[in-house]
Amino acid sequence: MQCDPIGTVHTPFETTSDAPRQGFHDDAEGVVEIDPAYREGLSGFDADRVVVVWWADRADDILTLDRDPDRGVFTSRSPARPNPICVTECSVRSVDPTAGRVRLGGVDMADGSPVVDLKATLDDQCWAADST
Amino acid sequence: MQCDPIGTVHTPFETTSDAPRQGFHDDAEGVVEIDPAYREGLSGFDADRVVVVWWADRADDILTLDRDPDRGVFTSRSPARPNPICVTECSVRSVDPTAGRVRLGGVDMADGSPVVDLKATLDDQCWAADST
Repeated sequence: MQCDPIGTVHTPFETTSDAPRQGFHDDAEGVVEIDPAYREGLSGFDADRVVVVWWADRADDILTLDRDPDRGVFTSRSPARPNPICVTECSVRSVDPTAGRVRLGGVDMADGSPVVDLKATLDDQCWAADST
Repeated sequence: MQCDPIGTVHTPFETTSDAPRQGFHDDAEGVVEIDPAYREGLSGFDADRVVVVWWADRADDILTLDRDPDRGVFTSRSPARPNPICVTECSVRSVDPTAGRVRLGGVDMADGSPVVDLKATLDDQCWAADST
């Protein structure tokens, strides 16, 4: 199955090892730059939080954890895994749909990682469903 | 970027339209069957909840919502999107790592959808980090 980047995320972290663990810090700022072909997907974007689905393109392909070989990767959120698809919920600091820029807080991606999706959080999706 | 199925999910729903919206019901039961090559990734799996990353292989590739063309897909969690990667947090009813079977509650996938990842929930991951 082919997964195409919709954009790229810029963060202060050269590698995922340099990044804070998810949910521990919200002060790291990053920017998602959405490619022109996908910017229409940002129309009406007004949420305070967003789920960023990104591709850890420099992560290892492993089945058990280096730090504990008795634990499989499916017990973890480590970027190193068979398909290096990572999911990070971030705060949204600003959005410019025309320029395709989304400024985020709470990033943990390695700088330059491909982004493959942005999604509403479950809370926002529930709210949207309630309102229709 | 190539995304390889690690298994398949079996659910009561022929299409995602038949499925309950995420977070609204936890009574729909499904089973993930992990392919033999990836079963080692289930070692030590003992969580009550899991994040299932799956591929909506019958979903449309769209940029704005059919029900509201002023809203882009990145404001939603609809399976129809440029990369049909979906993320569903489910309860875990039982796990058989040897057989590669994970029985789940709260599924919303179309029956037979490819699974591309299983991850710890953020709560479990934080707990794991605290304990090391």
